[in-house]
Amino acid sequence: MNLIDVVKHYARKVDDFIFRLLSVKPDIDFLYRACRHLLEAGGKRLRPFLVIQSCMAVGGSEESAIPFAAAVELVHNFTLIHDDIMDQDSFRRGVPTVHVLWGVPTAILAGDLLFSKAFEAIFHNTATTHIPPHVVLRISRKLAETVSTIAEGQALDMKFSGALKEREVSEEDYFKVIAKKTAALFEASCEIGGLAGCGTNEQVHALSKYGYNIGLAFQMQDDILGVIADEKVLGKPVGSDLREGKCTLILIHALRNARDADRRFIMDIYGKKNFSRSDYEKFLEIIRKLGSIDYVLKVAKNYVEKAKKSLEVLPESNARDLLMNLADFIVSRKY
Amino acid sequence: MNLIDVVKHYARKVDDFIFRLLSVKPDIDFLYRACRHLLEAGGKRLRPFLVIQSCMAVGGSEESAIPFAAAVELVHNFTLIHDDIMDQDSFRRGVPTVHVLWGVPTAILAGDLLFSKAFEAIFHNTATTHIPPHVVLRISRKLAETVSTIAEGQALDMKFSGALKEREVSEEDYFKVIAKKTAALFEASCEIGGLAGCGTNEQVHALSKYGYNIGLAFQMQDDILGVIADEKVLGKPVGSDLREGKCTLILIHALRNARDADRRFIMDIYGKKNFSRSDYEKFLEIIRKLGSIDYVLKVAKNYVEKAKKSLEVLPESNARDLLMNLADFIVSRKY
Repeated sequence: MNLIDVVKHYARKVDDFIFRLLSVKPDIDFLYRACRHLLEAGGKRLRPFLVIQSCMAVGGSEESAIPFAAAVELVHNFTLIHDDIMDQDSFRRGVPTVHVLWGVPTAILAGDLLFSKAFEAIFHNTATTHIPPHVVLRISRKLAETVSTIAEGQALDMKFSGALKEREVSEEDYFKVIAKKTAALFEASCEIGGLAGCGTNEQVHALSKYGYNIGLAFQMQDDILGVIADEKVLGKPVGSDLREGKCTLILIHALRNARDADRRFIMDIYGKKNFSRSDYEKFLEIIRKLGSIDYVLKVAKNYVEKAKKSLEVLPESNARDLLMNLADFIVSRKY
Repeated sequence: MNLIDVVKHYARKVDDFIFRLLSVKPDIDFLYRACRHLLEAGGKRLRPFLVIQSCMAVGGSEESAIPFAAAVELVHNFTLIHDDIMDQDSFRRGVPTVHVLWGVPTAILAGDLLFSKAFEAIFHNTATTHIPPHVVLRISRKLAETVSTIAEGQALDMKFSGALKEREVSEEDYFKVIAKKTAALFEASCEIGGLAGCGTNEQVHALSKYGYNIGLAFQMQDDILGVIADEKVLGKPVGSDLREGKCTLILIHALRNARDADRRFIMDIYGKKNFSRSDYEKFLEIIRKLGSIDYVLKVAKNYVEKAKKSLEVLPESNARDLLMNLADFIVSRKY
């Protein structure tokens, strides 16, 4: 089996758990349908996969990891629904976003419900598994702190959106945003898996670092795909980051290295809701000329190598191999 | 000291804990200010008071209850911020609502952050107190399930808003909504307090029933105040429920008992955004004539008596007396 098939294999198990937890209640079926919408539309379930493999890499069982894997995926989808409202995004995973289909009030509520269901996933579970209560508490604490971090990251992202109009945004600013907004949940997934598997402190720390670093790489690859991917494969419009005035590393690199005319051109379409197809082609030409995509990919690959290095303290296992492979997949994926 | 002074005494202790947890971070000060806004504007802190007194009524300490009291208040404020967006309410506690001041995206995020901070409040605490981990897990599970219930209640409330235009809404429908939307968190507050105080199953059950019943009474009194209170004391506009098409028990009673002309008049201004002051006066005259307010108050007082009765299994204590007094306050308050 190749990596993607293995990921899908575990995705089905996690989905069974998730969709049972989100059984549609007749009186308020619209709320549950809104909750399930993005989950049913697709998604790779990378974060649950990280929880499960991290758990197994330290000797834990697949079964004990599943509720935590579900919790992390539920948190992820909760943030997607709310982010799509805030960013006014209309498409994701090839389907209209939740607020487009059900309106903003139901979308807010659906996100809230996914969040509380994430914690339900964890606490329902404690009766049936053999994870000591104090470990479950450590996991819960990590998850709660991570959601706070993600909210802070989204706030930073909003603060920097459109900011390039007024001032320079540094690489450091960019990393501050993606560390909180994206890497935090990858880090938490691996740490939670390691805790669920009752790994040693050293092992849990190694997994946590691995997760953080592939999380950074994941966001950079996401930014790249958001610029150059095939829209049909990606499931959402290409060029949205530019349209929304998001400060990606690609843009930061391009603006730092562009000559005056190109720089002015980029600044002109940056944050513009309705630039033309030919404007976008010109933008692509400029960043290709400047090597901005290659630069970001190189930085991302560095983080992947760092991530793989930190796994070396773990004993050899199939799970560790899968995590190594996943790190490479993060920066080679096309969707 | 009278009851209100005692409530204020504990409110200060809970607020100390809450505002420490919500310390403003410089980079994203707007997010933390948005989080703190309603908490700083006021609020009676009845739910934290219930947690603390329930804990003490079964022999627990005030200190061990504080983090859970804070958690419940944080959850309450998270739901207020999101509900105000959904209901498009512009005033609360005498100040403009969060989305009015900071915009919808930041208000969504501020609610999310309060939610995660609620769980942080619980898990930070476990290291420093002597509550057994499995009890903390039971409390966390109750809180997570309660947030799901509140979200379902808000969904039902939205579903029934404006519904009277098309069909009758029954008393049963009304109670379904307020049980989930309001009573659930009162119930959870008392149950969580009882659990934190390591009460017996019988005691925890009694507290839980007490909380549920005063929660129902609280919502009915809230509905009454929303119709007849002094706006300055109430801190929000009077008549909003009618304007938003909410199906209160007052309205259900009035429509059931009104003669045709009055009934048509009520249906005419129900859900109307801009009825006149004189229309509202006429509405008040009709419901006074029909005794709808008195009817709802009578029903509420029944629930208060039921609540007080269930406390009888608890040993006599100052905390139990305070809970008895609080039950009466619920239906006599003017704000």
